[in-house]
Amino acid sequence: MYSHALVEKRAKGPIVVTASVVGATGYTGAVLTDILSSHPDVRLQALTSKSYAGDRVCDVFPHLRVSGVYTQYSAEAVGGSDVAFVCYPHAESHAVVAQLLDEGCRVIDLSADFRLKDPEAYALWYGFDHPRKDLVREAVFGLPEKYRAQLPGARLVANPGCYPTGAILAVLPVASDIDASGLVIDSKSGVSGAGRNPSAKTHFCAVEGDFRAYNEVGHRHTSEMIQEVSGAAGHAVTISFTPHLLPVDRGILTTMYFRPLRGLVGDQAWTQKYRDFYAGEPFVEVCDAVPALSEVAYTNYCRLAVREDPAAGLVKVFSVIDNLVKGASGQAVQNMNCMFGFPEDAGLQRKV
Amino acid sequence: MYSHALVEKRAKGPIVVTASVVGATGYTGAVLTDILSSHPDVRLQALTSKSYAGDRVCDVFPHLRVSGVYTQYSAEAVGGSDVAFVCYPHAESHAVVAQLLDEGCRVIDLSADFRLKDPEAYALWYGFDHPRKDLVREAVFGLPEKYRAQLPGARLVANPGCYPTGAILAVLPVASDIDASGLVIDSKSGVSGAGRNPSAKTHFCAVEGDFRAYNEVGHRHTSEMIQEVSGAAGHAVTISFTPHLLPVDRGILTTMYFRPLRGLVGDQAWTQKYRDFYAGEPFVEVCDAVPALSEVAYTNYCRLAVREDPAAGLVKVFSVIDNLVKGASGQAVQNMNCMFGFPEDAGLQRKV
Amino acid sequence: MYSHALVEKRAKGPIVVTASVVGATGYTGAVLTDILSSHPDVRLQALTSKSYAGDRVCDVFPHLRVSGVYTQYSAEAVGGSDVAFVCYPHAESHAVVAQLLDEGCRVIDLSADFRLKDPEAYALWYGFDHPRKDLVREAVFGLPEKYRAQLPGARLVANPGCYPTGAILAVLPVASDIDASGLVIDSKSGVSGAGRNPSAKTHFCAVEGDFRAYNEVGHRHTSEMIQEVSGAAGHAVTISFTPHLLPVDRGILTTMYFRPLRGLVGDQAWTQKYRDFYAGEPFVEVCDAVPALSEVAYTNYCRLAVREDPAAGLVKVFSVIDNLVKGASGQAVQNMNCMFGFPEDAGLQRKV
Amino acid sequence: MYSHALVEKRAKGPIVVTASVVGATGYTGAVLTDILSSHPDVRLQALTSKSYAGDRVCDVFPHLRVSGVYTQYSAEAVGGSDVAFVCYPHAESHAVVAQLLDEGCRVIDLSADFRLKDPEAYALWYGFDHPRKDLVREAVFGLPEKYRAQLPGARLVANPGCYPTGAILAVLPVASDIDASGLVIDSKSGVSGAGRNPSAKTHFCAVEGDFRAYNEVGHRHTSEMIQEVSGAAGHAVTISFTPHLLPVDRGILTTMYFRPLRGLVGDQAWTQKYRDFYAGEPFVEVCDAVPALSEVAYTNYCRLAVREDPAAGLVKVFSVIDNLVKGASGQAVQNMNCMFGFPEDAGLQRKV
Repeated sequence: MYSHALVEKRAKGPIVVTASVVGATGYTGAVLTDILSSHPDVRLQALTSKSYAGDRVCDVFPHLRVSGVYTQYSAEAVGGSDVAFVCYPHAESHAVVAQLLDEGCRVIDLSADFRLKDPEAYALWYGFDHPRKDLVREAVFGLPEKYRAQLPGARLVANPGCYPTGAILAVLPVASDIDASGLVIDSKSGVSGAGRNPSAKTHFCAVEGDFRAYNEVGHRHTSEMIQEVSGAAGHAVTISFTPHLLPVDRGILTTMYFRPLRGLVGDQAWTQKYRDFYAGEPFVEVCDAVPALSEVAYTNYCRLAVREDPAAGLVKVFSVIDNLVKGASGQAVQNMNCMFGFPEDAGLQRKV
Repeated sequence: MYSHALVEKRAKGPIVVTASVVGATGYTGAVLTDILSSHPDVRLQALTSKSYAGDRVCDVFPHLRVSGVYTQYSAEAVGGSDVAFVCYPHAESHAVVAQLLDEGCRVIDLSADFRLKDPEAYALWYGFDHPRKDLVREAVFGLPEKYRAQLPGARLVANPGCYPTGAILAVLPVASDIDASGLVIDSKSGVSGAGRNPSAKTHFCAVEGDFRAYNEVGHRHTSEMIQEVSGAAGHAVTISFTPHLLPVDRGILTTMYFRPLRGLVGDQAWTQKYRDFYAGEPFVEVCDAVPALSEVAYTNYCRLAVREDPAAGLVKVFSVIDNLVKGASGQAVQNMNCMFGFPEDAGLQRKV
Repeated sequence: MYSHALVEKRAKGPIVVTASVVGATGYTGAVLTDILSSHPDVRLQALTSKSYAGDRVCDVFPHLRVSGVYTQYSAEAVGGSDVAFVCYPHAESHAVVAQLLDEGCRVIDLSADFRLKDPEAYALWYGFDHPRKDLVREAVFGLPEKYRAQLPGARLVANPGCYPTGAILAVLPVASDIDASGLVIDSKSGVSGAGRNPSAKTHFCAVEGDFRAYNEVGHRHTSEMIQEVSGAAGHAVTISFTPHLLPVDRGILTTMYFRPLRGLVGDQAWTQKYRDFYAGEPFVEVCDAVPALSEVAYTNYCRLAVREDPAAGLVKVFSVIDNLVKGASGQAVQNMNCMFGFPEDAGLQRKV
Repeated sequence: MYSHALVEKRAKGPIVVTASVVGATGYTGAVLTDILSSHPDVRLQALTSKSYAGDRVCDVFPHLRVSGVYTQYSAEAVGGSDVAFVCYPHAESHAVVAQLLDEGCRVIDLSADFRLKDPEAYALWYGFDHPRKDLVREAVFGLPEKYRAQLPGARLVANPGCYPTGAILAVLPVASDIDASGLVIDSKSGVSGAGRNPSAKTHFCAVEGDFRAYNEVGHRHTSEMIQEVSGAAGHAVTISFTPHLLPVDRGILTTMYFRPLRGLVGDQAWTQKYRDFYAGEPFVEVCDAVPALSEVAYTNYCRLAVREDPAAGLVKVFSVIDNLVKGASGQAVQNMNCMFGFPEDAGLQRKV
């Protein structure tokens, strides 16, 4: 168990941790601000922003109704928090993370900088030589459904990517059932997944009424999927992943196809297998009907359904999440709750 | 060659055929009305409608700017046309088609009633015993890219389904390259594919911001795909097809996955194979970049792109069409053009 | 003060009222179900539905995560509740309301059947002779910002219409400032305002990418606006109201124009006048910036901003609400909170 | 009549003018490219772009199917065209326009730089002192319905703004019927009106599901409306204009309110007045039903309808246009057709 000043606080009365958000004016930062501002066990400390330092939260995000002002990042100001959420882009995040850990602050990093367990993989998938291989090895992959036991003792948690979250949750119960042909993972994401920086690709007129695949081979999130699925299967699993851009704000629907190693068993048996696997999970719902984005939008839930295609000899698994909540900020808070011993759904019961 | 009164007309001057649309107030009927009303070689005769008989076209579809009034269907009134487009639902269409053929009218049927070549397959896929197995056998499957040669002599053309059009065009060049694991076909369609009848599933509030799979195993269009792909391959090809509902009006994007029988050859080789196969086709465009719905919306084009996924050993093919144009009414007119010897793109050069 | 069994309950321990929803499977019923199911002072009793009796809530509205089954309406079953929310169409609602009042149940009616204070006005605006003019006279118009004092003693509350809610809140602070030329009220509403019954007008393909006015003169909600604005002004105020249909799910933005009786005074003075008027109101926010739908969507807030147009000598007032929350079900719960002495924002602090 | 080399061409055979587009990679440039590339009387010469010089049209706008490559602007290259369309922002355009006129090229300017007839008005409305007041005075305001007679002799045409086009067409028939209280013009525009440059305001996630007013007092387009409406009325008309941003790609719907100077006359009389005024106009359609955006989207039509509001003593006029076609590029081509004596609808009969 992580030794933390919190233990001392705990002795003195009701536990409230201080939390800061670094890079708080992107979409994930805004959702974190929303959740944390009404989390019963948290007091918001610093919200940092390069572009909006000095501006009020309510002016940048009028829908939030959160008081407070954005500040410039400094290791001192943020490092005094019990926990920091870092929302910087990959390759920019690791330096800040290292600073904050040095300050004694626990860190949940929403970038990709600590998700891959093999430090050499960053050169291949992200194009940079990772300078902090020690921290890469230390980080816990923050998917509570798989790594819950490691979270209370974790100093650094690597929050999973949005696509990997929906895909890995769809695979875990059947990781050892996939035959050698591997997985086809066809995902469709809302536009908020592309971030808040305006670009030609996220212009309303480029998205509305339209639909397309992008990064259609070798999207970086494939590396997380391979790592976690292969880990769960106990051997390398081949994954062909294709992301598509939906004309919606929020949500990822993943349609996954695999050929079952031991043959077909019927929809009910597969569904029961998923239900057993996820029994007791607060945020995974295994359903009879195939799920729609609207069933999880603005929530931390992942919904799953399984179907056999008898004529083709395949199994199809459908998963939906909100990319900004279970796929990012909600899951980050879920990780925090596990790290600090709060109820796992604290702050996560309302829509954000 | 089909013997037709047109031959006599041809002798007398510029050829103009008379065309009628049966069931003209659905979405496919409206697009047909739009195309045919400005087709240089066509004069619109009857537009029939059960619900709107007596109403003016411009009142039912204010955007069309087509004069004329809807009438009740009668075999006599419609049968006097050179060609009739029948836009009735499956299992309702065949009786009208048979009547019109008896009247000496050539027919392009947009329902599923004559698409399957095996008359016994209707019981399995569509739940009815087909009463006109003779016409089932006579009908030409109206995909000009495959059956162009049979169209001039055809009395009855079965216009392909929207999903099959996009999927089959994506497969044809590689039908003999698919290994025994078969095809995964993951399609995403706009809402107009569900037809104009209002329902809980097509209510704006049920679709906007949402996305879901539906008929997720065994969708009826799978039968057409199996028939045509297996026919092209020369042996039975397994197909796992999954349709999804996009929050857009028009368009189908199909993402297709297969394991190549003879291994990987590189993106360029696959692309060239597609370019060679479709050389000279007026409505198939093989592209380097993966295509978006917006590139074909409101047009009769199909755009295709191919990608190898080397790590997974798979090939991905992307196709986009407008479900109401190349996937229905535009292709029906393309078939008519082939049947009557008009330029294949006559009437199909503008957006509808 | 309304004499109610609640008083006896109150003596025995923590107050929890039982609430039923009549017509619970429309959009307003679904939002009420969502709010009430997590309201700290409420226990849901009956949810009635003509079409879905016997179905589980979670099957009809998978996003709700509410247990329970819809039942057929009966006066006995529903009438035993402390309060009933009636979500029937106008002209159908009054009979049920009368029954439930007879059963001793307090009623919040979401239809128009008791909003107009003049019983003769129903013939003019709604085309029926109201059979319960006594109840029309008894009903309290459920706009807490205006009639809060009457709610604790009310047996029957007429929940305002969606357009009137946004418009009246925009007018109240300046009702006596409007010159003889009256008000121009130009409103734009999301599609959920048209209800859940599918129709040609709410088909996704008829709405997406489109925009239009409808009921462009004499929309029935005008009657509520005239009644309340004239009442606040102390004399008849002329109102020209035009509703439009936005391609969005939720929300109404109203742009209101008037010529100030006593001339221009500057943006700040108007804004301050609104702030003073609504000081302490839990759900009215007067802003400096003009508000967007997204700032109130899924909440019970109304946001307002005022602008002078000096060159034209007019004042513009902008108001936004969520038509299903502050414009219907949220306001209904706000009314209930006032009726029963609960905190006015109980159950209304999260998005629905 | 403008003396032009075209006259000499005309003598030699079928007339084809050469046309260039300066700033061809914004939305208006793309629509111009689309229209001109299939215009029967035009040959595209140069398409210039600062950002995309050297790129192929089909790579920047894959939906266009236009061959050709963007070039850097030079007065020589462009000036050799018979006509140039200038699509630069206001305050940047006038210098290029002056250069091209010097080269002997006729110019249709889509910026605001020559729309106001009073050269001093640019300081007030656009914040710069106009350096070419001579050209301001020479320019013809390119609304063919009002200034058709001046177009054949025009060297420089100032294409109207998108909001003014829809609004002025709605007012012209009744300009002398407006009482002293003036006009309320409440307009709602699609996002393409904000241009193709990505910004926080045009990000898909900032627009989808949302709606808001912007530039809510004193929008620059008000100046054009005042100029043209007052001109038509013969005296100054007060206008209060409010633009709003719709979550759609294309189209402007304007709802206009005025108090008729000589009282109410009935819907039919107003409609007939509009019909008489616009008799013979190829692109103005006066309708009985209030029009929707979808009826004019992607076309050069303006649709109008009029309604009296007897209770309020007001008249409401509804107009819809496509902001990029009749509101910009389509009208620019209509102007060109008038300038060069082509059929007024040449190139404008298909959707773009």
